[in-house]
Amino acid sequence: MSDASPSGDGGERAPELLDSRELCRTRIFEVHRDRVRLPSGVEQDWAVVRHGGAVAVAAVDARGRLLLVRQYRHATGGWLDEVVAGRLEPDEDPLEAARRELEEEAGLVAAAWERVTDFFPAPGFCSERITLFLATELASAGPDRRPPDPDEELEVLWRDPAEVLATSRDAKTLIAAAHLVERHAR
Amino acid sequence: MSDASPSGDGGERAPELLDSRELCRTRIFEVHRDRVRLPSGVEQDWAVVRHGGAVAVAAVDARGRLLLVRQYRHATGGWLDEVVAGRLEPDEDPLEAARRELEEEAGLVAAAWERVTDFFPAPGFCSERITLFLATELASAGPDRRPPDPDEELEVLWRDPAEVLATSRDAKTLIAAAHLVERHAR
Repeated sequence: MSDASPSGDGGERAPELLDSRELCRTRIFEVHRDRVRLPSGVEQDWAVVRHGGAVAVAAVDARGRLLLVRQYRHATGGWLDEVVAGRLEPDEDPLEAARRELEEEAGLVAAAWERVTDFFPAPGFCSERITLFLATELASAGPDRRPPDPDEELEVLWRDPAEVLATSRDAKTLIAAAHLVERHAR
Repeated sequence: MSDASPSGDGGERAPELLDSRELCRTRIFEVHRDRVRLPSGVEQDWAVVRHGGAVAVAAVDARGRLLLVRQYRHATGGWLDEVVAGRLEPDEDPLEAARRELEEEAGLVAAAWERVTDFFPAPGFCSERITLFLATELASAGPDRRPPDPDEELEVLWRDPAEVLATSRDAKTLIAAAHLVERHAR
């Protein structure tokens, strides 16, 4: 699992890593406790979830509707409607991961792909970076589609992006909807 | 640290918790491995970061500019510009936390507060829920302001929300900017 690459909006200054220890690891992420010294001399302790990164897909049909999948999210205690998304496999190209997730989760392929942006969902404690793609010109993946993971249980929904922006409770889905609404307004 | 409350967009169905064990804990969060059985009978293993929740503040000045703070984010390997934000203290009211963070991070108080929404930054593996507030009618907190944490190093910036929506790499900041741009368009 690789570290996030440098990402600051400002500053090329390099903090110094004074100490790092692994606290635990799961299939999805590792937890470290790091101590750093900033160029100013200030020292900080950080609990960090090291995550290999993910992709999200704003899949939009010919009527402008955004594809959502409804799934149980144990961490939140309930079901959430989210854009298609998934973790990067080791060394996987983000666009390839986006194609794979769209096929696995929704049984769809897209003829047109565009990389929209990338962002950190929780930069205060987690290295995960999500690359967001726009997928259009959608078609069924057909009978040979890559199947969902056996323990995934998904329901597919199509929603108006403005409605999603007003009602979603998932960060990446809000960001995807905001970009669609913004494009439509331009 | 409390669990997230039920949050699903659909479904009142209750999954069954088959097993839970703590893998590690830090000052900020605890990591558990849980096994659940969905109402359908599907069983899932979840690695979960249990987080006590946070607030974010879209503080907007009389010219419509959004307040950002630039800070080092070790998890991302660099500096990021983000809206004011911080973790809830135990049993702290979200609005009180928002007032506290605005004063600590930017030395400001706001006469007008509005709760905008709440959302999950990383529902796939983390219980953190962020409540977003809009703060306007800003003024200096004066000489008796609550000071920043001694290990925080912040730089305050004012930016146009549309510019932030186009360029930010922080999820909560993108969501805050999207709500401001959307309000302005209405």
